[in-house]
Amino acid sequence: MSLFEADTAVQPTGNGCFAASVTDRWDGLAGRPLGGYVLAIALRALREVMPVPDLLVASAFFLNPVGPGPVQLRTELTRVGGRTATGQVRLHQNDAEALRAMATFSTSSLSGGQNLMLGSNPDLPPPDKAIEMHEGGVRPTAPIADRVEYRLGAREEPPTPGSRPATSLVWMRLTEGGGDDLFAIPFLVDAAPPAVMKLGATTSTTIELSLHVRAKPNSEWFASRATTSYVIDGYHDEDFELWDASGRLVAQSRQLARLPKSEPIAIGDVGDRLTPS
Amino acid sequence: MSLFEADTAVQPTGNGCFAASVTDRWDGLAGRPLGGYVLAIALRALREVMPVPDLLVASAFFLNPVGPGPVQLRTELTRVGGRTATGQVRLHQNDAEALRAMATFSTSSLSGGQNLMLGSNPDLPPPDKAIEMHEGGVRPTAPIADRVEYRLGAREEPPTPGSRPATSLVWMRLTEGGGDDLFAIPFLVDAAPPAVMKLGATTSTTIELSLHVRAKPNSEWFASRATTSYVIDGYHDEDFELWDASGRLVAQSRQLARLPKSEPIAIGDVGDRLTPS
Repeated sequence: MSLFEADTAVQPTGNGCFAASVTDRWDGLAGRPLGGYVLAIALRALREVMPVPDLLVASAFFLNPVGPGPVQLRTELTRVGGRTATGQVRLHQNDAEALRAMATFSTSSLSGGQNLMLGSNPDLPPPDKAIEMHEGGVRPTAPIADRVEYRLGAREEPPTPGSRPATSLVWMRLTEGGGDDLFAIPFLVDAAPPAVMKLGATTSTTIELSLHVRAKPNSEWFASRATTSYVIDGYHDEDFELWDASGRLVAQSRQLARLPKSEPIAIGDVGDRLTPS
Repeated sequence: MSLFEADTAVQPTGNGCFAASVTDRWDGLAGRPLGGYVLAIALRALREVMPVPDLLVASAFFLNPVGPGPVQLRTELTRVGGRTATGQVRLHQNDAEALRAMATFSTSSLSGGQNLMLGSNPDLPPPDKAIEMHEGGVRPTAPIADRVEYRLGAREEPPTPGSRPATSLVWMRLTEGGGDDLFAIPFLVDAAPPAVMKLGATTSTTIELSLHVRAKPNSEWFASRATTSYVIDGYHDEDFELWDASGRLVAQSRQLARLPKSEPIAIGDVGDRLTPS
């Protein structure tokens, strides 16, 4: 069992309820457990009550911050259809609901539909030719930097207004394994440096995250593409794609997040800030 | 009161519950009320129990088909924060839950955050220079074609694999007014011809739709950009942007939807199929 699997394990407590322990091993730069890590725990609990095993699409609302410690999960099997099932999970900590997610599960044994890829995988050199993100700089002390290895391609040009979105291309790998775990996906789509870092932001608070799982992960390394197109009144989108090393699209996600009011963002030469500090 | 407002009105029945009537005036090409129309009813009910008025982000799961007729709505105020509030709404018809949505509302009186536009509005000629979608062809008999006027720019080249996503640019206008209604947004993001029509599909079933409202609508005409990037095993994404006539981004949405297995899709000269038939 990988560390990720152990740290997202859930124990049934009856009536569709589960207990889990949020560890401090997946804290991000903000000093709190990454939202995607907490979501992975919630969706793993929900999967326990689903008649089909494969996460297909999920949406999560982050209601209150979650810290390390015990959490309680209440699941609900909402609807069973022909090839899919949909349910809801609520995660509580200290008597407050901290996260609510709804998700549809499916089963790959019913596959056989059509395929057409009109986008393309992130333009990154192979992992062994890519540059370790913190090479030549200061590696952040956040636990996430121990749990995930990040590698970049060549440095990108800073974005110009109106020309293109702020895009960040990064290879990611769970340093202690577990990347073939379906429930690593909700974590991985939230674990790359946010594209708004390219605009000078150092933190951002997710309100809602939606996730489409497009294939089962079967890779150690994942190539990611994070894109922010519009910051309006402090709120920004982040689109995210996760591809495996063989060039298969594994997942897409989209977040609506909020920047702190106090922190100015800018278009310009902010390449140095790509390295979280 | 616009026809849209009247047809999405909700009546309180106590304890956070509401009644509404789904009309057959907003049926799409599939012969059923558009999912976005039903979602607008659900979110209007949810708004009634929110302490702040402005829809900010929503996610909806479409659980069962909805037909014309009465529906019941159960709302829940889940969390009230500093400048936002989050709740959930369940829509039932004939004793089956047909739609469940969660949404965060805010208030524009707390605006003042940062702005940075890195994408751009759809490249369409002004509405009065654009081409009526059904000009020279057969106008579909679906009620949606009476409720919404669609105008296109110049005919686009069909997409090529790997080169770019399937993108559809369309002006939209509610023919009987009501485009300045915040709750027209959930309808409008679902009312344009799906981008997969450019690949030859004539129908597609939405599983989940997430929606970010980025500005209050203040326009008669809206420019839209629908993009499908990946069809995998019959499932496809659809990203959608809605801009007002002055070039302001009003909303973004993303769907995960499923194509029928029987219907082949293709890259090629499918321009004729852009007009729903």
